[in-house]
Amino acid sequence: MLDNKKTTMGLTSVLVTGANRGIGLEFVKQFLALANPPQHVFATCRQPDEAKELQSLASANNNLHVLELELKNYASYDDLVGQVRDVLGDNGLDSLVNNAGMYHKVSLEDGGPELMVDNFEVNAVTPLMLTRAFLPLLRQAVANKRQPIVANITSKMGSIADNGSGNHYAYRASKTALNSISKSLSVDLGKEGIICFPLHPGWVLTDMGGPNALIDTKSSVGGLINIITTADKTRNGKFLNYDGTEIPW
Amino acid sequence: MLDNKKTTMGLTSVLVTGANRGIGLEFVKQFLALANPPQHVFATCRQPDEAKELQSLASANNNLHVLELELKNYASYDDLVGQVRDVLGDNGLDSLVNNAGMYHKVSLEDGGPELMVDNFEVNAVTPLMLTRAFLPLLRQAVANKRQPIVANITSKMGSIADNGSGNHYAYRASKTALNSISKSLSVDLGKEGIICFPLHPGWVLTDMGGPNALIDTKSSVGGLINIITTADKTRNGKFLNYDGTEIPW
Repeated sequence: MLDNKKTTMGLTSVLVTGANRGIGLEFVKQFLALANPPQHVFATCRQPDEAKELQSLASANNNLHVLELELKNYASYDDLVGQVRDVLGDNGLDSLVNNAGMYHKVSLEDGGPELMVDNFEVNAVTPLMLTRAFLPLLRQAVANKRQPIVANITSKMGSIADNGSGNHYAYRASKTALNSISKSLSVDLGKEGIICFPLHPGWVLTDMGGPNALIDTKSSVGGLINIITTADKTRNGKFLNYDGTEIPW
Repeated sequence: MLDNKKTTMGLTSVLVTGANRGIGLEFVKQFLALANPPQHVFATCRQPDEAKELQSLASANNNLHVLELELKNYASYDDLVGQVRDVLGDNGLDSLVNNAGMYHKVSLEDGGPELMVDNFEVNAVTPLMLTRAFLPLLRQAVANKRQPIVANITSKMGSIADNGSGNHYAYRASKTALNSISKSLSVDLGKEGIICFPLHPGWVLTDMGGPNALIDTKSSVGGLINIITTADKTRNGKFLNYDGTEIPW
């Protein structure tokens, strides 16, 4: 069984997108429950007022900050970064978990180009743009002698090598593209002392994963947090399963 | 040296996109120059009236058909397929070469989401939609006991495994996504007797490749045509270099 009670090894702050449900919400719960939790956990979602569980958690944990973010509203990023900076001061951000994602159904014969494009934009473009927006805060963490991490939640369905069943054109292409972007980020950011990797959460029992999924969110996120909190540069740019094993591209 | 004078082994018709210059134009020239050329070569470009070399070739080769195609104008696909069907009758289309592509500059800190999306749409989405549009004609070729081929011209810059230098976010992600789509197509179409693979043309001396490229278009396209005209099912779904060697995803 994976251990999610490790100390954070210097992870003083983390931001998780798509945190109102599923894997994102579980990330928030488990970060808060760590033996040595981050001083600040930022949880973004589209409609904070509707995110009852997040609000309830925030009432009980004053280190949790629930922030509004509509991923495709790029013009709002500066304001979001400003809100996070207001909390963190000059400490910088230790970890950005690009978790938010979605699935559009596109098969060989059905599903239009607008679904392909939207799936790509949400799942692959917004993590890149958000990483860019938070670069100044990630760099502040480096300046403070920490080794920040950008964790992109992808899917094994984005593995081309593993694709034996075809179909799912929009989702697969978006996640393969996110893997491509993660690899470029790992090269470009690695030079600055920032780690980046794409992580596969397993086939998880969530609204998106459906009823035939293989593991529960607790085990999945426990594994992912273990990877994030113990990451070193040997992991930079690797495509990792929630149990720490490497997945082929 | 690669041999581009092989017989077409039953390749009776081929359609090449982005055929007004560079690799696309060279595809047309070399298909026409084969010892046993296709009965019909369809060359698409945005502005046939401006494509002087194509028009000149068409004057000298009555098996060459120059057709207008603006890739993102999906509503025009039915008409294009109709024009091709008018020429081919019930013979079907033997090969679709999705060659058209473009490069947008997006780095870690520069280049907006609209460039990411446009590069993805042109390089990855349109080949999928065009393949879908031509499915009835590819299936007619299968019905006529031939083994049609969808060749997607990609780039080694889309190889995640090979990415040691980072950057080029829009172009890399678009080509990685095209590889992902090609793999799904190889699974879905393979069941019907249609072969699909992504092909890397090498770093070619074209407007897009720039002056530091490694090989000329003649050698590149000679190799690619050799792969296309000798393809069998063992090549289905493989990421192939112009010299026939396999590239890791």
